[in-house]
Amino acid sequence: MGPHPAVADVRRAVREALADVGDGELVLVACSGGADSLALAAALGFVAPRAGLKAGLLTVDHQLQEGSAARARTVAALAPALGLDLAEILTVDVGTTGGPEAAARDARYAALAEAADKLQAAAVLLGHTRNDQAETVLLGLARGSGLRSLSGMAPVTGRYRRPLLSLSRATTVAACAALGLSPWDDPHNEDPRYTRVRVRTRVLPLLESELGPGVADALARTADLAREDADALDTWAESAYQDCALSDIAGSVTLAVPELERLPGAVRRRVLRRAAIAAGAPSGALSATHVRAVERLITAWRGQKAVDLPGGMAAVRRYDTLILAMSPIA
Amino acid sequence: MGPHPAVADVRRAVREALADVGDGELVLVACSGGADSLALAAALGFVAPRAGLKAGLLTVDHQLQEGSAARARTVAALAPALGLDLAEILTVDVGTTGGPEAAARDARYAALAEAADKLQAAAVLLGHTRNDQAETVLLGLARGSGLRSLSGMAPVTGRYRRPLLSLSRATTVAACAALGLSPWDDPHNEDPRYTRVRVRTRVLPLLESELGPGVADALARTADLAREDADALDTWAESAYQDCALSDIAGSVTLAVPELERLPGAVRRRVLRRAAIAAGAPSGALSATHVRAVERLITAWRGQKAVDLPGGMAAVRRYDTLILAMSPIA
Repeated sequence: MGPHPAVADVRRAVREALADVGDGELVLVACSGGADSLALAAALGFVAPRAGLKAGLLTVDHQLQEGSAARARTVAALAPALGLDLAEILTVDVGTTGGPEAAARDARYAALAEAADKLQAAAVLLGHTRNDQAETVLLGLARGSGLRSLSGMAPVTGRYRRPLLSLSRATTVAACAALGLSPWDDPHNEDPRYTRVRVRTRVLPLLESELGPGVADALARTADLAREDADALDTWAESAYQDCALSDIAGSVTLAVPELERLPGAVRRRVLRRAAIAAGAPSGALSATHVRAVERLITAWRGQKAVDLPGGMAAVRRYDTLILAMSPIA
Repeated sequence: MGPHPAVADVRRAVREALADVGDGELVLVACSGGADSLALAAALGFVAPRAGLKAGLLTVDHQLQEGSAARARTVAALAPALGLDLAEILTVDVGTTGGPEAAARDARYAALAEAADKLQAAAVLLGHTRNDQAETVLLGLARGSGLRSLSGMAPVTGRYRRPLLSLSRATTVAACAALGLSPWDDPHNEDPRYTRVRVRTRVLPLLESELGPGVADALARTADLAREDADALDTWAESAYQDCALSDIAGSVTLAVPELERLPGAVRRRVLRRAAIAAGAPSGALSATHVRAVERLITAWRGQKAVDLPGGMAAVRRYDTLILAMSPIA
């Protein structure tokens, strides 16, 4: 008798995600003890030895809840039974920058990256499912900031891999049950003060009931299409930037206006954003409104003054060139 | 004392939308008698004579509700008081193809196009607001069919113009009230059997309460960004198609595989869709799954047989060419 279908699905997803990892390499799994990452850890423990890989578990103690250290020890202690060769507890101090969710995420990823470096891991597996992807797309949609924010999470980003993006949370819950594993239900996952929790518990269920049960699939599909489209436009913008850039020295970029005029708006604005960042504008503070103001120096030119940009930068037009540099531009 | 701010907003939107219409031309407005199109018709009646334009009202009797003919006469009779030079009632027979909403829309647009041709109108104004745009984006999202379906409605499509896309429904309701106009509340707009009605009355209010009051704006912004991105990718795909097409005779298109291999996936799939349609595949029946199957003849080539496409078409690979033609391909 083969494994439960949910267990088989998770194992297959892990096997496919690791197909290109070399013999004898170490693969880590980030595991909170929740159903998604627990099912993932169990699958890695099954797949890794059969694929000639070493496998380890990382669990992060965010020190935000009573008993979090004990919880981390419990998760780490599961490693041998799951078939994993090592386990490490990463204890982090969560700051406040960007709100509680962003601060916890930043601290977690910094610790995972440090551990992966130290252990020379080939890959770190993350337990995000299709449900997480649907939530991410809806959150991106609510920001209204375009294609990249609709792209959700990529299956592979640097060392991180997300084998479960095409599986549902129901599958990881069923896999844990079939394996006799008891996942931990993080109380934060039910706290309606978090926007993501409200998306999961209120918004997505309503969308499913009003628009049809395929909404999570449709959102995940939208993410995949948006990511591919965003990648293609970035490729075009990078090549157009090379064509437009007359000079590109750290702190100052000069672009050719006639080349910029010929581009479709969506590409031109990507080139201008790229140029502002190359010149030194901080990307997080550079808004679509800034980029549109710079674009008007090209598309609605009537002798405007310099356009101020974040980080003390500015953009000015001089005849058929556009200069992005520290303000004031001489 | 100037006009009420809502009235001023609608008039300004109409004035800007008609800035390029030539002196003495006729502009029509499609008016159901609802708040959006009634405010729009009133604004056109105010703006047109001051801009040297003629203006007329079209109202469609869909013959779907008791009293629809009388309702159409009431709307048409408003024209002189609104400052419009002519009014026509377009009586249509609604079919069943594609469901009740799609069938009514098809019949309505066919009648509007015929009337605009007959009257030699330069433009037909439609009363879609930012709220309609947000609903359209959510419906597109629920289909999960990519960038174009997130693009919502364009401000200009051929002869149609949508001056109110950046204004809210609250503005058109306020404008009608300020002008002493009593809009008609179409009972279909409250009928929860229509998906769009459920999006308006249940989904969007929940999104606003859970994610913040800026959701409709964010959705409208997403539509604008998605449309610009989709236009840029279509431009690229058209140019790439010209580079890839070795021959393009009605009924058969031959493409160069090495050229297709070099393209980003998002562009390659647009080229393949364009080629299949050029060869004669019916665009409505050609799914993303069909296009991905054809793509595998390029990206995962292992000697596959022909890929069947709708309309009796097929795609086959022959050495370094891809042929799309009627099946079987000799």
